[in-house]
Amino acid sequence: MVSGCTKLARNVNMEKLKNNYLFPEISRRELEHVKKHPNVQLISLGTGDTTEPIPKHLRHVQRKIYHTLSTVEGYRGYGLEQGDKVLRKAIADTFYGHLRVKSNEVFVSDGAQSDISRIQLLLGSGVTIAVQDPTFPAYIDSSVIIGQTGNFHEATKKYQNVVYMPCGPQNSFFPDLSKTPRTDVIFFCSPNNPTGYVASKRQLHQLVEFAKTNGSIIIFDSAYAAFIEDGSPRSIYEISGAREVAIEISSFSKFAGFTGVRLGWTIIPDELLYSNGFPIINDFHRIVTTSFDGASNIAQAGGLACLSPVGLKEIRSVINYYKENRKILMETLASLGLTVYGGINAPYLWVHFKGSKSWDVFAEILEKTHIITVPGSGFGPGGEEYLRISGFGRRDDMVEASRRLRSFFNTRTKHFPFLSSASNTN
Amino acid sequence: MVSGCTKLARNVNMEKLKNNYLFPEISRRELEHVKKHPNVQLISLGTGDTTEPIPKHLRHVQRKIYHTLSTVEGYRGYGLEQGDKVLRKAIADTFYGHLRVKSNEVFVSDGAQSDISRIQLLLGSGVTIAVQDPTFPAYIDSSVIIGQTGNFHEATKKYQNVVYMPCGPQNSFFPDLSKTPRTDVIFFCSPNNPTGYVASKRQLHQLVEFAKTNGSIIIFDSAYAAFIEDGSPRSIYEISGAREVAIEISSFSKFAGFTGVRLGWTIIPDELLYSNGFPIINDFHRIVTTSFDGASNIAQAGGLACLSPVGLKEIRSVINYYKENRKILMETLASLGLTVYGGINAPYLWVHFKGSKSWDVFAEILEKTHIITVPGSGFGPGGEEYLRISGFGRRDDMVEASRRLRSFFNTRTKHFPFLSSASNTN
Repeated sequence: MVSGCTKLARNVNMEKLKNNYLFPEISRRELEHVKKHPNVQLISLGTGDTTEPIPKHLRHVQRKIYHTLSTVEGYRGYGLEQGDKVLRKAIADTFYGHLRVKSNEVFVSDGAQSDISRIQLLLGSGVTIAVQDPTFPAYIDSSVIIGQTGNFHEATKKYQNVVYMPCGPQNSFFPDLSKTPRTDVIFFCSPNNPTGYVASKRQLHQLVEFAKTNGSIIIFDSAYAAFIEDGSPRSIYEISGAREVAIEISSFSKFAGFTGVRLGWTIIPDELLYSNGFPIINDFHRIVTTSFDGASNIAQAGGLACLSPVGLKEIRSVINYYKENRKILMETLASLGLTVYGGINAPYLWVHFKGSKSWDVFAEILEKTHIITVPGSGFGPGGEEYLRISGFGRRDDMVEASRRLRSFFNTRTKHFPFLSSASNTN
Repeated sequence: MVSGCTKLARNVNMEKLKNNYLFPEISRRELEHVKKHPNVQLISLGTGDTTEPIPKHLRHVQRKIYHTLSTVEGYRGYGLEQGDKVLRKAIADTFYGHLRVKSNEVFVSDGAQSDISRIQLLLGSGVTIAVQDPTFPAYIDSSVIIGQTGNFHEATKKYQNVVYMPCGPQNSFFPDLSKTPRTDVIFFCSPNNPTGYVASKRQLHQLVEFAKTNGSIIIFDSAYAAFIEDGSPRSIYEISGAREVAIEISSFSKFAGFTGVRLGWTIIPDELLYSNGFPIINDFHRIVTTSFDGASNIAQAGGLACLSPVGLKEIRSVINYYKENRKILMETLASLGLTVYGGINAPYLWVHFKGSKSWDVFAEILEKTHIITVPGSGFGPGGEEYLRISGFGRRDDMVEASRRLRSFFNTRTKHFPFLSSASNTN
């Protein structure tokens, strides 16, 4: 024990975590850059943050809500921890109307990020997980924190006891399930963050069959479903048999610009059972009522407004705005001869820089163009050599970012590797 | 494996949980009662839910916020996971201005309930805890879920590997620390929920010295601090040396009527260190950025408005309203010859029904008076024979509840034990 310290041993799981969580680390570097270059106009194509106002229709609803919160008759205190009944029904009807999802299976959350950790609390340290590689880093980080993994292995850049399912151009970004070992849990994000690839109905059918054969459960993250435009499934429950093997998590963040308002949901079907026949929904209900007190009632009122016909129409136009952004960036990057994946059914472009370290590319682009991106290796070892570029942002910024990127790449020797800098190779 | 099931084993920690979480269980019984007696006017003196509107001042601020969320210039997406800087500073200044708490040590949450579980994630399964008995049930339940405890022991009504510190009339509701074994963590709620007792400066000094001697950390819950009126400490940091041993969790729920809006905070001092010298604040930062995405920006704007001079003045008057409620109930119960504790520095009365099971008293009062209370045994074995009665509510309801209670107790043979009913002895 060091003098002045408590005798509390640091949680061994926290000690295993290799890096800072990806997005705060990027914010840290952004701040550093702004400090160094106080007069430049930084453009963020990084953290997938929404920039367009929430639908105007919501404003009226919210004002009304606030008015009622400040009158005796209208005031509401604690709500149900699992969410307002009317909102739960609206979520079931809007997103799952044809898919047999019932209101009682909908748990309203303060966003998918929080529910990923609550699901890990539910699962406990005794299970094994598989993840797409690359994928959203919260799945693995929350797995490390709850104690499901071994140590980080520096050479492979992987945590022990986690199955990384490679998803890249070699397999059209869908894992080769015939080579995937059994795990208790499979995290699956479609459209995938960061690659932007959406799984087809046939592929998801394979995934559900794979889970059935292995007795695994799928945790399906559909946070970007609103961007799907090629008819691919927006919910895992479009696949027959999924109710017996899959949880779905989703969010109002990218759908309705609620990144700051905080609202999401999780679906646990009644048919999803532990090996002893006990319903998983019962334990999740216990977690949600014990470790959470419900999403803000103001956020929930906003969510409900989004699901009205007027709200949905406004949302559609905001999503189209981001899609147009993405198209501008895609054309720019393609015209520069870069290899660009994703971007059809998702707000993200996944750009290949063969032979380069992604943190080096990130650093050089930031230094030379004052544009924030996200280094692919932050999403797993399979993301090395890639950058994720986001179409969330203002149109003017997209146009200006395109100009800067053209100018940077056109004056740069194309096959010269990106500079390696010791401080950027984490 | 049961047919139709996955091969996922149920989390052993979830299996250990003995009952439903207390408050949803009470809501369930309330619903049952309303179904049975559809025409009666039920009064809740149960779940400590606020009923008075949020300060009017807030309404204007919130409308403004919503307006800005729906304009391009005003829109904000993701905020810092640990909370808005201005709000963090306002919390530090308002509640800890004279106590050296810095903005960076303030983590804004969506309420103390969520942060209790996030702190348990931080601590992990390898630590031992002590709790006041009786106390707020989320401390133990979250401890069971993360895996710090053994099984529930039916005879003692205690979980193994948890130290229950008796707090009753025999020790003026403060634990006898000379008889308390060392644990890594001590949860301490003052003013205590449910007993309403606040620890004095001398007592908290003893507690801090006890933690120092043992190298333990205190998790101090000050959610009811706004109700303290006898000069007792409102923060553990009023005690010298507490920064080296204590975390403080608190909430806007009871302070500003934010039970539904969801906002709270946690303080982790820079000086609080693990046995290896590593700062606990660093790991909590990692938990908050990985397992949470910040409190709703609308709730945060509301919290900031509460801390303005106008906001604080309005809040004071709402708290006085609840205090007056509590006084009405206290006079009623005392006039009936009941032994009543608490209620001076807290919104709760802790009423003794010697020789009776608290769930039986709960059930009979509900059946005969249509009043919801909370059975003391829900707060731990030390709460058996007690009811918690809450002063949160509308004035009219308090007056009517008093009338019903007088009528019930006056016509009832005083020393006749409360009827035991099989369905109510859980």
